[in-house]
Amino acid sequence: MSLVYVHFFSVSLDGFGTGEGQTKDLHFGHAGERLHQWMFKTRAWKAGGSAGIDDVFMQRHDQGIGAEIMGAGKFGHPGWEDDPDWKGAWGPNPPFHTPVFVLTHHTRPAIEMEGGTTFHFLDAAPAEALETARAAAGGQDIRIGGGPTVIRDFLAAGLIDHAHIVVVPILLGRGVRLWDGLEGLEERYAIESVVSPSGVTHVTLSRRSQ
Amino acid sequence: MSLVYVHFFSVSLDGFGTGEGQTKDLHFGHAGERLHQWMFKTRAWKAGGSAGIDDVFMQRHDQGIGAEIMGAGKFGHPGWEDDPDWKGAWGPNPPFHTPVFVLTHHTRPAIEMEGGTTFHFLDAAPAEALETARAAAGGQDIRIGGGPTVIRDFLAAGLIDHAHIVVVPILLGRGVRLWDGLEGLEERYAIESVVSPSGVTHVTLSRRSQ
Repeated sequence: MSLVYVHFFSVSLDGFGTGEGQTKDLHFGHAGERLHQWMFKTRAWKAGGSAGIDDVFMQRHDQGIGAEIMGAGKFGHPGWEDDPDWKGAWGPNPPFHTPVFVLTHHTRPAIEMEGGTTFHFLDAAPAEALETARAAAGGQDIRIGGGPTVIRDFLAAGLIDHAHIVVVPILLGRGVRLWDGLEGLEERYAIESVVSPSGVTHVTLSRRSQ
Repeated sequence: MSLVYVHFFSVSLDGFGTGEGQTKDLHFGHAGERLHQWMFKTRAWKAGGSAGIDDVFMQRHDQGIGAEIMGAGKFGHPGWEDDPDWKGAWGPNPPFHTPVFVLTHHTRPAIEMEGGTTFHFLDAAPAEALETARAAAGGQDIRIGGGPTVIRDFLAAGLIDHAHIVVVPILLGRGVRLWDGLEGLEERYAIESVVSPSGVTHVTLSRRSQ
């Protein structure tokens, strides 16, 4: 059976996975790009970047992944559903290179992008969405791409095997929380932490054997 | 000028400093003692315990401290104000050994305990409470002892010099949050993290020079 991963989803020290006030220009609202500064310093992001622990985690993004599931908020700003020409916030050649299933109540025909990414639109609960993604992944693993609500829903439904969360030492104060409603998650997942010299803490959740 | 410290205040990964449903027997509500397991394994707690990083942080508790300020919820369960004989949740010889200022709207005469602890009861805002504690501390430093609301209020008021928060890898799901209302705290404090082999992450906030 293929596995289900979350790769380097960043939250603030106070647990917000995105800020308040998301717009077309501010994909993460008032958080701006502050949750992702650590990524921009890695070799995975730019030539000459660090090859340390942040990079090692970054390099996991594509390994063995056959499909991604993302929320409507990762695909676009609030209101994209009303724009028939909207093709996502990820440019003409999105960094996914697989089928991507966008969870939305406003479905539309699939959009084929450059580089192997095809966006499919799905109005489905987590378990059903995962079944659909698995069928498209050719036996490979599935990435749950975020945002915070989607990751929380998949964790709550017990559908994730390995989650990698990056705690960034800033306090956003407002936005969408990742951890809400997940009381006792440590009973189902072994939780490990490691601090990077960049200042972020990599937290990995590994599903305990049944 | 004496400094103001928070020493090893523990929160869950989802940011709760105490659980829900505090009673006389459950000082931390449904959290029980799960936020403090890491402490019980140190040499500071018991002979033969670990002398590693958790212990080093534990040993900071008393060094140079001349007074503590704590909230009503650290002094006792909800309703202690109605019990004229209540002398705190800390036994006959409390682990403070200095004057302790309990913030409460229900003041009463001071209570002298064994071992140097005297509880004083104060209905005051953070800045005024700090002034009172400083006057009693004989030039030594002040510890802000918690709970989460008190630490948050003192952080928000800019009154803390060094805060040490311990993030425990459990999800409480409910209770009282530490980090609420502290947006942008990283602009005023340098934040460092280090993971202990015990699994907890020690987060230190050091006030930036003006």
